[in-house]
Amino acid sequence: MTTIETILNHRSIRKYKNQPVSDEVLNQILEAGIRASTTGNMQVYSIIVTKDEENKKKLCDYHFKQSMILEAPVLLTFCADFNRFNEWCKQRQAEPGYNNFLSFFTAAIDALLVAQNVALAAESLGLGICYLGTTTYMADKFIEFFNLPEGVVPITALTLGYPAEIPELTDRLPLSGVIHNEKYQDYKPADIDEIYSLKESLTLTKNLIQENKLETLAQIFTQKRYTKKDNEFFSDKLLEVIKKQGF
Amino acid sequence: MTTIETILNHRSIRKYKNQPVSDEVLNQILEAGIRASTTGNMQVYSIIVTKDEENKKKLCDYHFKQSMILEAPVLLTFCADFNRFNEWCKQRQAEPGYNNFLSFFTAAIDALLVAQNVALAAESLGLGICYLGTTTYMADKFIEFFNLPEGVVPITALTLGYPAEIPELTDRLPLSGVIHNEKYQDYKPADIDEIYSLKESLTLTKNLIQENKLETLAQIFTQKRYTKKDNEFFSDKLLEVIKKQGF
Repeated sequence: MTTIETILNHRSIRKYKNQPVSDEVLNQILEAGIRASTTGNMQVYSIIVTKDEENKKKLCDYHFKQSMILEAPVLLTFCADFNRFNEWCKQRQAEPGYNNFLSFFTAAIDALLVAQNVALAAESLGLGICYLGTTTYMADKFIEFFNLPEGVVPITALTLGYPAEIPELTDRLPLSGVIHNEKYQDYKPADIDEIYSLKESLTLTKNLIQENKLETLAQIFTQKRYTKKDNEFFSDKLLEVIKKQGF
Repeated sequence: MTTIETILNHRSIRKYKNQPVSDEVLNQILEAGIRASTTGNMQVYSIIVTKDEENKKKLCDYHFKQSMILEAPVLLTFCADFNRFNEWCKQRQAEPGYNNFLSFFTAAIDALLVAQNVALAAESLGLGICYLGTTTYMADKFIEFFNLPEGVVPITALTLGYPAEIPELTDRLPLSGVIHNEKYQDYKPADIDEIYSLKESLTLTKNLIQENKLETLAQIFTQKRYTKKDNEFFSDKLLEVIKKQGF
């Protein structure tokens, strides 16, 4: 499969076969992962591999009980990590100056580019993946669970395994809706209607609105999935975690 | 080329042929880009395409005058973007609650996974790319230049074009240095020595230390490339920008 085919073929996999991922395959995926660009080639990230059943159960609880974590043979947690780099500096007569927000964000970028490399490498070998956005919501729990020292913050996680389902491809906004040429063209009401028309016309969307007894898909996002109250709660927690971890 | 081969073959390209990227190729790359996973399939990002020579000159200045921006036919700027989603909510009787740090970070994750998809799609078609970390340093300038409204923050950028060089692959830390099994194993001094030994043994490293009249590679990072003073300055600026853009 070509790279473009791998990319176009992506779907999030939430059901996995009871089939382990061999060390050989996992290593191949991770070796590919770490070829991603990082700022100054500093590689300020770490990846934590979870295979142990008991550990997966605990992590599943923290990840809002998303059951694919129990099904998938492997869970990968990608962390922004300046700890290793700072230790290196200290051992090499250099005074690290990375206890600030920019450095945290730099390390988060590193971790995310590696994560997407890992996702595509895995998919190209016939495995399925699913990203876990709950990683930042519950970062404090993961820090405790994994014993993350100062300088390390969990950013995202992936389940990994052989798919037991091939879901339909999910919809995307039309390319023209997310691309701007030369300057940002702000959206007029008619643009918004057009950009979201496909998504709003899906049977899936109509069923969701009915099930939720709401009027619009947007209301499902604001009132059920990603509410202001939750966002503010998890914002405060995440900012606290970033500071507590020394950034 | 297989996906794994594309990934393993990655090098940052800083010299480009004077050869445009056709709209057809660019569209294929961007269509692949937007297949990346995003939180709740919200796609809270935008991509700004720069081809205009005058615009590239200005943007090159803001990006610390990195000359590959002038050479490359295309510059892509990836932004966290809740503006479009917020507008949609408002037009659909839904009250958006995304003016907070968690939402900014969610949107940044979306933008970065798309960026890496774009990078790999481009590379698989024979193009070269280079990430521009200066995007977050100078975010205020890019906001002004691109007319980014509230809810939009530039996160990263890529130059794109046909390579006029094939540099050596850059070194990476050994996989065992960035992977942890089940729990985070903090680094002992001997681990640090081992993990950084390859990097420190390179002729490139030795030359750099000599040129900079310093004692260690780590000192080049802390005293020249990514200094505490700069990091703190750009941290304050970035945090200000995130707030100013309504998060």
